[in-house]
Amino acid sequence: MKRIFYITLLFIFSSIIVTAQRAPSLNSPEVHKDHSVTFRYFAKNAKKVLLDTEILSSSLEMIKDSLGVWSVTVPPVKPDIYPYSFWVDSIQVADPNNTYIFANERFKRSLVEIPGDQPLVHELQNVPHGKISYRYYNSTTLGSTRTLLVYTPPGFDVNGSVKYPVLYLIHGGSDTEETWTKVGKAHLIADNLIAQGKAKPMIIVMPYGNVRPKPMPDFTKDVVNDIIPFVESNYPVLTDSKNRAVAGFSVGGGQTLNIGLTNTDKFAYVCSYAPYTATEEYKKNFTNWSPNPELMNKQLKLFTISVGTEDFLYESVKQNIEMFKGKGLNLQSLIVPGGHTWMNCKRYLAATLQQLFNE
Amino acid sequence: MKRIFYITLLFIFSSIIVTAQRAPSLNSPEVHKDHSVTFRYFAKNAKKVLLDTEILSSSLEMIKDSLGVWSVTVPPVKPDIYPYSFWVDSIQVADPNNTYIFANERFKRSLVEIPGDQPLVHELQNVPHGKISYRYYNSTTLGSTRTLLVYTPPGFDVNGSVKYPVLYLIHGGSDTEETWTKVGKAHLIADNLIAQGKAKPMIIVMPYGNVRPKPMPDFTKDVVNDIIPFVESNYPVLTDSKNRAVAGFSVGGGQTLNIGLTNTDKFAYVCSYAPYTATEEYKKNFTNWSPNPELMNKQLKLFTISVGTEDFLYESVKQNIEMFKGKGLNLQSLIVPGGHTWMNCKRYLAATLQQLFNE
Repeated sequence: MKRIFYITLLFIFSSIIVTAQRAPSLNSPEVHKDHSVTFRYFAKNAKKVLLDTEILSSSLEMIKDSLGVWSVTVPPVKPDIYPYSFWVDSIQVADPNNTYIFANERFKRSLVEIPGDQPLVHELQNVPHGKISYRYYNSTTLGSTRTLLVYTPPGFDVNGSVKYPVLYLIHGGSDTEETWTKVGKAHLIADNLIAQGKAKPMIIVMPYGNVRPKPMPDFTKDVVNDIIPFVESNYPVLTDSKNRAVAGFSVGGGQTLNIGLTNTDKFAYVCSYAPYTATEEYKKNFTNWSPNPELMNKQLKLFTISVGTEDFLYESVKQNIEMFKGKGLNLQSLIVPGGHTWMNCKRYLAATLQQLFNE
Repeated sequence: MKRIFYITLLFIFSSIIVTAQRAPSLNSPEVHKDHSVTFRYFAKNAKKVLLDTEILSSSLEMIKDSLGVWSVTVPPVKPDIYPYSFWVDSIQVADPNNTYIFANERFKRSLVEIPGDQPLVHELQNVPHGKISYRYYNSTTLGSTRTLLVYTPPGFDVNGSVKYPVLYLIHGGSDTEETWTKVGKAHLIADNLIAQGKAKPMIIVMPYGNVRPKPMPDFTKDVVNDIIPFVESNYPVLTDSKNRAVAGFSVGGGQTLNIGLTNTDKFAYVCSYAPYTATEEYKKNFTNWSPNPELMNKQLKLFTISVGTEDFLYESVKQNIEMFKGKGLNLQSLIVPGGHTWMNCKRYLAATLQQLFNE
């Protein structure tokens, strides 16, 4: 009995130590039925805590209770997934109680998902699910072993008797190879659209587009010389250009133009989202560019550029669109409300997936 | 020309806006050749910044330079992967410049990897790689769709002509289904040991062990009634108990004992790492427990409990070990230096993988 008593004491003691070291576990973010959201953060000695979120255009002051828990409730929000962080006396922090993190190299922000009354295209629904695989490949271009993510659709036929088309999908600047799934929910958008018969079953390959300190054009080489061969030797895929697409956002949208438009023999689908094009590679490719529009329009089954009217790159993207149209290319533009955000990225991708591989 | 000039201006202007909003990109953590590590954090107005790391038993004060970058260099460190965070005027933050995050529900910490002069068992090496897949399964026990991770070994035979044994591997309290890969590098440990012929090719299933607000025993039911059937109907696996193992750390180490020892007809391998056993489920299972040691010793090909001598649960785990041995069970204990850490978890797992499925 004495032994059990001491064990019990030990556990109580351990629990006290752990509790003293850690902040309390809080329910944050708490999404209410009316789509309002309460955010909470524990900081007993902080002087000021702000909620910074892409839901609102300005920060919200949070209020501290007697236990040191700061909170604020945002009024009903349009259902979507939004990044947010706390500014605690000028220090930006992710929400410690939330496991959903914006995969990024430069900041740590959290994500809050407000579900729709009817499930949105990016939500987990009761449909057959594909899977995301984390793979290593050897890049001879970059001289290193790198990670990429591969989405395979529901019912993926591992016997190789069915062959799939492939979308290469590139993240934005300072994002990582995980951003399209963790933030962009590419896998769920694909699951849902495939279940509705609105998208073809396809494989989606999400590489890591940051090749620094190597120059950016090395990523174009990596895609063409390393990633595509890796995918085509490890997955049952269709290898003609009509079954290969490239898409990307921001810096990845610029990379999409560089990769796709210089390789129209390899990619029949080029879909660029809010491209950032102030790069040497883009300048080299498209300044004084003299394409053969008849050939390219024949090769390209789909060439789209998407952007939001509040995107900080909106004017620049409009210039890109005019330039490509001016060269005689068949270009569809998708202009929607919203800014340079991952809320818009999901919308762009959902539109693209319904347009791919329809021939 | 005018248009190009304005576009250029726009980009410069945009860059300025972005730069003003963001902290500078820093090289942190910077691991030097001699295994010392420099950590950096930008906070122009902070009064005090501390580095908190599992490398050292106490925090280190960081020094601010004229640009507002705080830094400190830790002298040569024993190669391993260590969690760390910054305490900025009493606020704990992960390193914004580091994408490697400790997957956890309660805190945000970063990870720094110090490579060995000879590659360690958890390091990315030039060997054939398995893959990690993120899967959804329907839990009838819990009434929800949940995520689990599945490691399949190099050369995984998708045709189903080779069938594999399966290890079910459970994270610690407040960890997530990603912690065994993101922090524990289970996939790389398996890759390396399989390449050396020291571990059998196997499938490793990493579920999410936190079933709150449901009671903890529902996880035991979820494993037996939902997860195992999901795995066995989706992967080419061997389904006898001699080809099924369960292992876990801390709270997951306690769950391992609960799941494994009440189902010795299903699991011939039960490997518990620094188990936390102050739970109702453990109490219910093992207080006044009267096992049949002959039968259990016949069913169990391996029963191990591992712990570090500086683990805060060390005394408790020693009592567990004595209790199980007192009941006549063949139990191997692995007592090593170190605390209740993921540095030790990797060591425990590496030991286990070499002992599994050897019959």
